[in-house]
Amino acid sequence: METPMKTSLHPEDSLDEEPLWPATQHRPQQREAKRQAVLSAAAQLFNERGYHATSLDDIAARLGVSKPTLYYYVKNKEEILLGCVRQGLQLMLDGIEASRSAGGTALDQLTACMQVYARIVTQDFGMCLIRVGDEQISASNRAELRRIKAAIDHEFRRLVAQGVQEGSLAPCDPKMAAFVIGGALSWIGRWYQAGGEYSPEEVAQQCLKTLLAGVLRR
Amino acid sequence: METPMKTSLHPEDSLDEEPLWPATQHRPQQREAKRQAVLSAAAQLFNERGYHATSLDDIAARLGVSKPTLYYYVKNKEEILLGCVRQGLQLMLDGIEASRSAGGTALDQLTACMQVYARIVTQDFGMCLIRVGDEQISASNRAELRRIKAAIDHEFRRLVAQGVQEGSLAPCDPKMAAFVIGGALSWIGRWYQAGGEYSPEEVAQQCLKTLLAGVLRR
Repeated sequence: METPMKTSLHPEDSLDEEPLWPATQHRPQQREAKRQAVLSAAAQLFNERGYHATSLDDIAARLGVSKPTLYYYVKNKEEILLGCVRQGLQLMLDGIEASRSAGGTALDQLTACMQVYARIVTQDFGMCLIRVGDEQISASNRAELRRIKAAIDHEFRRLVAQGVQEGSLAPCDPKMAAFVIGGALSWIGRWYQAGGEYSPEEVAQQCLKTLLAGVLRR
Repeated sequence: METPMKTSLHPEDSLDEEPLWPATQHRPQQREAKRQAVLSAAAQLFNERGYHATSLDDIAARLGVSKPTLYYYVKNKEEILLGCVRQGLQLMLDGIEASRSAGGTALDQLTACMQVYARIVTQDFGMCLIRVGDEQISASNRAELRRIKAAIDHEFRRLVAQGVQEGSLAPCDPKMAAFVIGGALSWIGRWYQAGGEYSPEEVAQQCLKTLLAGVLRR
């Protein structure tokens, strides 16, 4: 897990806990960096204890600030969760885009996307995306998240279909194959523990090998 | 989804909502059948809306009884969840035991266990086991559930290792291969919707094929 924050969370970098002139005295970039620190600490706590068992007080305590200070950066717990999940999804989208830009065969691109996906679900925001079901998020925001998830799933399907066409992958139902790939990789986020027996790279490598080649002896 | 209940939930099968002599006037089997109906309705609601968004009032409403009647069969919401998850796990254990008793090669047994697992996570209790994280369950009960999950995981590892030994499976790290198999199959419980494009049998068949043979063209 990353260190929760590198910037001081206190508005104005003073020791005062209460922001006196919140809107005028802060540069937006500073405010955003501090908001990021809030999301990062929250993602860690959600992953450790579950979303419902984590309070705003817990998040404030982990950051060493008061709850009023927290409210300067975020409106409520759902907004925090939404921020965490959005970041997890954005990391995926960026990684997939980079894998595609790198070019190569459909199999090369699929392998690169799988690697990116496996890596991200072992990190705070990606893990949060997997561990906290989106039933916790209100219907309007849930629709946005599901659209992004569908886009990621669609990209995996497209690459599988293209792989079948180029002859590198066995003929299959690309939708189901993408579910199996996405499911097995997502599940990493449910069981992975940093500092355990396997490094994220080892996990990714082994999972990819199993998914690509299967378990049967060839 | 199964129909939530086949027995009337009212104690004594009367229209009275309040059990007047709860302990003495009921045969244990009747009471157990009715408790089952409560768990089954609850599992469906947890799967549809999430655990936290489901209230005891919702469960009572789905069964067409009052909340006091519900309290005759269960103590609280956590006891209900625990009951659902225990049943999901018991279905798995029974299925694995049956697959082993049927005999055959390690690959035969592994395939049968995978089929059982895929089937159960599309059913109410199995789906509940997958969708509701065990952070919702208090620490002492969580330990019990994790022991059972570890036993299931261990059985998959054992069969993979035996398959490698008998030469049907490719050399691999059985622990990681079992995680990939268990992860992909568990994920079915997260996305599967009854009455959708695929039947549970089709899902199981396609997932097994992908996991066994991999996506690469042989």
